[in-house]
This record gives sequence, C-alpha cells and structure tokens, in this order.
Amino acid sequence: MTAPDPQTVRDWLIDLQARITDAIGSVDGQAQFLTDAWAKTPGEPLQGDGITKIMESGAVFERAGVGFSHVRGPKLPPSATQHRPELAGAPFEAMGVSLVFHPLNPYVPTVHMNVRMIAAVQPGQVPVCWFGGGMDLTPYYGFEDDCVHFHTVCRDALAPFGDDKYPRFKQWCDEYFFNKHRSEPRGIGGIFYDDFSGDTPTQGFALMQAVGDAFLPAYLPIVQRRVGMPWGERERDHQLYRRGRYVEFNLVWDRGTHFGLQSGGRTESILLSMPPLTRWAYQHQPAPGSPEAALLERFLPPRAWV
Amino acid sequence: MTAPDPQTVRDWLIDLQARITDAIGSVDGQAQFLTDAWAKTPGEPLQGDGITKIMESGAVFERAGVGFSHVRGPKLPPSATQHRPELAGAPFEAMGVSLVFHPLNPYVPTVHMNVRMIAAVQPGQVPVCWFGGGMDLTPYYGFEDDCVHFHTVCRDALAPFGDDKYPRFKQWCDEYFFNKHRSEPRGIGGIFYDDFSGDTPTQGFALMQAVGDAFLPAYLPIVQRRVGMPWGERERDHQLYRRGRYVEFNLVWDRGTHFGLQSGGRTESILLSMPPLTRWAYQHQPAPGSPEAALLERFLPPRAWV
Repeated sequence: MTAPDPQTVRDWLIDLQARITDAIGSVDGQAQFLTDAWAKTPGEPLQGDGITKIMESGAVFERAGVGFSHVRGPKLPPSATQHRPELAGAPFEAMGVSLVFHPLNPYVPTVHMNVRMIAAVQPGQVPVCWFGGGMDLTPYYGFEDDCVHFHTVCRDALAPFGDDKYPRFKQWCDEYFFNKHRSEPRGIGGIFYDDFSGDTPTQGFALMQAVGDAFLPAYLPIVQRRVGMPWGERERDHQLYRRGRYVEFNLVWDRGTHFGLQSGGRTESILLSMPPLTRWAYQHQPAPGSPEAALLERFLPPRAWV
Repeated sequence: MTAPDPQTVRDWLIDLQARITDAIGSVDGQAQFLTDAWAKTPGEPLQGDGITKIMESGAVFERAGVGFSHVRGPKLPPSATQHRPELAGAPFEAMGVSLVFHPLNPYVPTVHMNVRMIAAVQPGQVPVCWFGGGMDLTPYYGFEDDCVHFHTVCRDALAPFGDDKYPRFKQWCDEYFFNKHRSEPRGIGGIFYDDFSGDTPTQGFALMQAVGDAFLPAYLPIVQRRVGMPWGERERDHQLYRRGRYVEFNLVWDRGTHFGLQSGGRTESILLSMPPLTRWAYQHQPAPGSPEAALLERFLPPRAWV
C-alpha cells in the first residue's frame, strides 16, 4: 500500500466542499453561495490555491463559509511538526476543507467541521502524510436529542477505525474547544484529532473521508428539527452574546486561526468562521432556571452523550 | 529624589478614574457607570484588587469601560522584563488605569487610553519603576479637525518632557496599533510608550500624570463636535463592521489582552474593551469615493497630524 495520491485527496476535498454547499444551499433556499477562487501570487512564501464559498444573509444561515485550500511550502513550520521533529524544515503540502455555519434562528446550533492532510516530502524518500480535523457543535439552546444525534453520527463514522477512536477524539475535542479564560467549553463537543496517520498508509485518508461524509448526516437533521421554532428578541440577544465566546475562542485560542493570521494566511478565508453579528456585555448572566442558564449548567460541561 | 511612593500613584490613578467617569457620565446624561470593586482571592498566583467601572446602553456611549487594577506578584513575568533581564523573577507590583469607549453615534470615534506603572522590588534594594501607556483614536468617519486636535493635545502633554517624546511615541503608536493580518492601522493613532523610566525617578510618574490629565481635553471636544450629527443604517453598518477590526486587534495582537487572558487575568475586566455589537462580512469594501472609503485611504495610513 502506498500513501494517498495528493491529486486524489484534492479531488475528494473539492467534491466534499461542493456536496456540502449544494445541500446547505438547498436547505437555505433564499441565499446562494458565492464562489471565490484564489491563488497565491508568485513570490509569496506559501504557494497554492483555494476555493472560498460563502453564503450571507440567508433565510436559515446568517453566515456560512466553507473553504478549500491547498498550499505548498519549502519548509514545514515547527507548529506542524511537534510530534515529528525529524521532518522539521522539509518541503510540504497541506490541503483541507474547513467550515463554520452560523444560523439565524437561535435554536439552530452553530457547527464547525474541518478535514486536512499534511504531507512532508523529503527528497528521495516516500512522502509522509498525516491527517487532522473533526467536527463540533455549538448550540445556543440545549436539546438532548440534538447532542445525542450529533455524537452518535460521529461515533458511528469512526467505528470502522477501532473502538478507541471515538472516545479519544471526543475527549480531545472537549479539551481543545475550551475557553480557558472563561473555564468554559465552546460547545457540546464532537470529535477532534490531529497528527493521525493510521495503521496503514490509506487509513488516514479513509478516516478523513468518513468524517467528511458524516458531516451532513450529523448536522442537517438538527437544522431541520429546529429551524421552524419561533424565536424573538430574547433568544436573539442570547445568541449574539454567546457568539462572542466563539470569537474569543477562535481569535485567542485556536491554533489554526492564530497561526494563519500571524503567518500571512488569507485573512478573509481564515475569518470565514467569524459570526455575522456579535455582542459583548459586562458580567452577563442568564436568569436562574432559564433555558439560557441550562445551556451553561447542563449542556456545556463535558458529558458522555452516547 | 526617590521613586514615587506606590500609595501616591495608586491614589492618583483612582482619582483619575473617578474624574474620567464623572465627566463621561455627565456627557452621556442617560446611563450611569456601574462600579464593581474586586479583589483576587488568597491563593491565586497574583494578589491585588481593582475597580471596574462600566456604562452600557447610554445615549452617547453604547459601552464605556474604565478599569483600575493593582496587582502584586512574587515573580515578574518575562514579558514585562525584556529590556531589564536583571529583574526577571523579582517580586513586583503593577497598577494602572485602562479605558475604551465605544460611542453609539458612528461619527463619534472610539477611544482608548492606558497609564500603568510597574515596580520591581528586590530585597535590600531601591525599587525600580517604569511606566507605559498612551492613548489612541479610532474613528469610523475621518475628520481632519478631530485628528489634528487629538494629536495636538497629545503633543502638548508631552512637550515638558522633551521635544523627542511626541514624535517617538506617535510613531510607536502607529507601529503598535496595527492589524498586521490586514496591513491596516487600527485608527489614526495618538501616542504609545512602554518601559519608560525618565531621566529622574519622578519623571516617569509626571509623564503618566500628563498623559492621564490630557485624556479628557483630547477626547471630549471631539465627542461634543460629532454627537449631534445625524446617522442612519448606512453609518451604523459601517461602524459595526469596523468594530470587527477592533476585536481582531485586541484578541489577536494586543500583548496586554492576550497575556492577560492566557495568564488568568480577570476576563470581564480585560474584555471591557470589546465593542457592544460587531459584525463581520466577507470581502466587504466601501464604495469608491465614499466617506467610508476615505477613512481607509486618507485617514488610517499614518500621517503627520501636527
């Protein structure tokens, strides 16, 4: 068995992006995804290209971004090689799909999904590939059914790769998507993994495909269940306030966002994850016993959902 | 001459905070500053106390926060001692006042001011003090008069300390308040300085007083000139979008914010600087020839305002 062919992975990622935007565009019905193909200019430290797809002011999605990117560089950055010091400085390529959807209805949760592959290519040697990614859910109002559904689809997607994967990747997700300055999880979790090669050269790609393919089945039924629920100013205020936590996590703690912004990545593509509208308020606390308080008390603290 | 007495500096800072909130509260007329006195719990790595004053949903100010804090620690963090390696690890105290005001009317600029003193106390030695701070203006619409006024007051405040201070601190401000990932200044600048001891032990405190005392004369006349200007949805959209840049700077690049959040500072006091409402939109560009475009083209690029 050999490492996956980069062109095969690239084609699969571009197709995944198209499948997701087609489905999400249909669900929205009102807005359409704008497609922005970009390429790095010759002379920039990173070379490569990408396709940014973004939908704003939809009926269901206030802002939904899905980015594909594929970059090549002469030297693997240290942040990508902490577990592979022997590859530091090797020529590399990295490709992936990353998405964040911010729905308008506060009863529909925000979702994030990412799948990526990094390959280090040493002259005269077989390329070394590893994979990372995952998906996680950030509700504004907690519904047991939604959390159980999302985690069940995540667990089932990982089942073919061994029973250890879901518990490990679930815990990794809980630990990673955590606002340390608030001692507060970003959402109800999901799965997160990094530096994954698998037991065989093709397992990493197969797991990436399983995660990517599981995204729509994990998320769409939740959208369909919640999108008809009536909401008003109270729910909207709560949603805008909680979105501030999303901004805080992404700009302060998320290694990918922070590294991308500080190292000259494409800002507008990296910040697809920012919410369309966000508010901050001093010492804001939900009323005791309210559904808003239940989110913090019963849903955000890490739980075994399946 | 001796180093300033910490109690004297503390008293002055608390009085400065009160003078500013009194004046800003009067200008607003509708909302009032809430006062939140806090103290670190015994056992936390940093000890100390503070007074957070915050006004929200005012007639003039949508969110206005002024924080005083005074902390003591057993070991000066490396980030505070890059120019004083001999003091790394010494017991220290740090105190300061920091403010950010976000007006409601998009024609009134956002403003930031900070004055702080750090003292390292080595057993058996004279304490070593240094000072930092400054103030800078972030308009949503450019007015030459306002920029010239703000910079003139800054220049005049620093004049007694030598003709080199304003040009140096003005350039420092332009370089510091810069969103590198956008290649864009945060605002029209002002003054910024750090690690300042002065030529005599009392000069650092005197300069801190000059900067703090200059804040109201630098800012209030601009508020008074602009607060009556009518505005609508277009101006509001532009303001909310530009506030996103403020969030990006503070959470990605501002060393104080980032260090505070990552090291266990008081989150709600650090994030007083966050705007009350903010929006993001993909590849948003102001119309050519518009006042919104003029801000980016003619006001944000660093200029000699006086």
